[in-house]
Amino acid sequence: MKHRPANVLLPEGFSFSALSAGIKVSGRPDLALIQCAPHTRAASLFTKNRVVAAPVSIGRSSLKISRGTVRAVIVNSGNANCATGQEGLNACQRVCQETARILDIAAHTVFPSSTGIIGVPLPVEKIVAKLPALASGSQSSKAGVRRFADAILTTDTRPKTASASFNAQRGEVKVLGIAKGSGMIHPQLATMLVYLFTDIQGAPGELHRILADVCDDTFNCISVDGDTSTNDTVLLLASACSGIKLNDAATRQRFRKAVFEVCRSLAKQVVSDGEGIQHVIRLQVEGGRNREEARRIAKSIAHSSLVKTAWAGSDPNWGRILAAIGNSGVALDPGHVNIFIGDQQVCRAGQSHPFNEKRAHKHLLQARCEVRVALGRGSSRLVFVTTDLTADYVRINADYST
Amino acid sequence: MKHRPANVLLPEGFSFSALSAGIKVSGRPDLALIQCAPHTRAASLFTKNRVVAAPVSIGRSSLKISRGTVRAVIVNSGNANCATGQEGLNACQRVCQETARILDIAAHTVFPSSTGIIGVPLPVEKIVAKLPALASGSQSSKAGVRRFADAILTTDTRPKTASASFNAQRGEVKVLGIAKGSGMIHPQLATMLVYLFTDIQGAPGELHRILADVCDDTFNCISVDGDTSTNDTVLLLASACSGIKLNDAATRQRFRKAVFEVCRSLAKQVVSDGEGIQHVIRLQVEGGRNREEARRIAKSIAHSSLVKTAWAGSDPNWGRILAAIGNSGVALDPGHVNIFIGDQQVCRAGQSHPFNEKRAHKHLLQARCEVRVALGRGSSRLVFVTTDLTADYVRINADYST
Repeated sequence: MKHRPANVLLPEGFSFSALSAGIKVSGRPDLALIQCAPHTRAASLFTKNRVVAAPVSIGRSSLKISRGTVRAVIVNSGNANCATGQEGLNACQRVCQETARILDIAAHTVFPSSTGIIGVPLPVEKIVAKLPALASGSQSSKAGVRRFADAILTTDTRPKTASASFNAQRGEVKVLGIAKGSGMIHPQLATMLVYLFTDIQGAPGELHRILADVCDDTFNCISVDGDTSTNDTVLLLASACSGIKLNDAATRQRFRKAVFEVCRSLAKQVVSDGEGIQHVIRLQVEGGRNREEARRIAKSIAHSSLVKTAWAGSDPNWGRILAAIGNSGVALDPGHVNIFIGDQQVCRAGQSHPFNEKRAHKHLLQARCEVRVALGRGSSRLVFVTTDLTADYVRINADYST
Repeated sequence: MKHRPANVLLPEGFSFSALSAGIKVSGRPDLALIQCAPHTRAASLFTKNRVVAAPVSIGRSSLKISRGTVRAVIVNSGNANCATGQEGLNACQRVCQETARILDIAAHTVFPSSTGIIGVPLPVEKIVAKLPALASGSQSSKAGVRRFADAILTTDTRPKTASASFNAQRGEVKVLGIAKGSGMIHPQLATMLVYLFTDIQGAPGELHRILADVCDDTFNCISVDGDTSTNDTVLLLASACSGIKLNDAATRQRFRKAVFEVCRSLAKQVVSDGEGIQHVIRLQVEGGRNREEARRIAKSIAHSSLVKTAWAGSDPNWGRILAAIGNSGVALDPGHVNIFIGDQQVCRAGQSHPFNEKRAHKHLLQARCEVRVALGRGSSRLVFVTTDLTADYVRINADYST
């Protein structure tokens, strides 16, 4: 299997377009469209936040009606269409219906996404006015992918794509992923906006099982700021254009691996582009009784302001990590906890362990750092990717002018 | 009842002393002692963090052995004596034993506290060397209280005391409280170091019920940074010196009210001295099905980096508050949520409600701001006091030099 994070592989059956509809004050591209081949089937995961944006509600219900068939995806950035009530639902439906009319497809096969500020009415007329130009500008090319990836960004500083492929008996299967996300990153089962494309042929249920499994190991193991978004969506689209079916164990396994590589790369790209961050921390939690408790402890560490600010200062203050473990709600014995920073043990059996502080500090000065926590309770293990908390994060999110 | 936050009332039966033992690098006072009259009974609450400092373990077990009798409290700042293993327990015991020997009392009637950095061995010889001078310098005076209140501080910028009194049939009962705390403030049943003094006569069980009840409404309703300390302790000491007994409903009620006023004042002082803060937010959550769900929602809002940074920018971005409510884990209907900033409604039924943004911004520019959330689920109500998250908080906690 080839994993190509930088390179864009284009699965057959998809075309892309994007333009500026004037939703973003900056005038940057903010409206994007994906068109899919007739037999495209989808699997999806959504935010676990109880506050759910209009496009998430509509998209979820459309997928039910269409039994997983998706012919187009219409995305706007700059406005989340969340906390906008019945008007927001109407606006989203209007955008889907207009898109369907122009493309001559059924309205419930148009999947909507929105990302941006919460609580502001969606400028639906601006969007509708641009749909004809958007539809006609569609390209099945790498340039089209790049334009799409750019138009869905908000506070992100760079577009995020990843590709993988594998050879099946009857040919090659390609997987392409495009994501946006930088703040409000603390996924619960799904996260941010992530679009995954493949030319394999699979039933929605089968695709869903693989997607849920992969997301559990990738997007559900990252955190920037501990806030779960209201618009998180991961959508996997399978065009069937390769003619290769997802119907034997070997193909399923290779496909899962390709999807995993793409999702892992996108998850890392999202964290690395986290708002204001200076350090990406690869946090390994091992020795848990089960995966859920390992994740709970990882999230408690990744959510601690004191741990994250220590990382911002490249401070090997393991006491804050231990205190965050103690706060996780897992009834563990701190006397069995070991903590490692880089290649050095800094805490043994819940106590200070002699280490070279200068070397630990030097390790934490790097852009990518390793922190390992061994719980001594079992054999479950998890890799969680998170960030420091910097004064820049505060500035980005406190920036407000009347 | 008189509530005197600035004024110090001195209940009979306690004397105070403090000095510098060289634990803090700054040379500031870091060792403090309370001596209590022979019949003093205590009630206590401790941190819910699974990682527990040595003095918390020793103090808890000593109170059991002595059946709630406390004759002295020995406190050091600059070192938490946490994650220090058996050596830390030995060090703590040594300090208690030496204190007991010098004061000629039983070792298990000496209650220990430590606050400061986690994971560094307690400099026990430095402490023991200073105990004779500490014991002889004891004063039953306001100057003694001030010196004690000053010596227990760490990152705090000011000492925290509060007093109240009430008249019972046979005379006046006084309540005095002294606290420290500025960061790692996110209490779970107990918080920080808080010492409460009274001259009433009460059994430990009776005192405990009142203390737990009051803490639930005060220290358990504040948060600075969402991190629960490993050393949190609230200790209520009743000297019995007033001769007034806690044995009828009227006295209990008045006593509870006096303790409540003192704790509420100290809780507010702790939040107002939060690390790097610019704004104190009085967050009122109402319409909960029960108090626990109201508290869960308040904590979710108070723990959201995006909400806290918006407050730092005086940004009336209610969408982030709504998203934090949706993330609380309470299965509520966002369509019933109303949000108010200052005197204006900003969100009605989970949606945008027209408001004067300039006025809301102006309200949030104040040092003390009001945010109210109505859940529309029941009649439970809670006032939670929290803070913004500023670049200064990050600087204070990221400051590290090898």
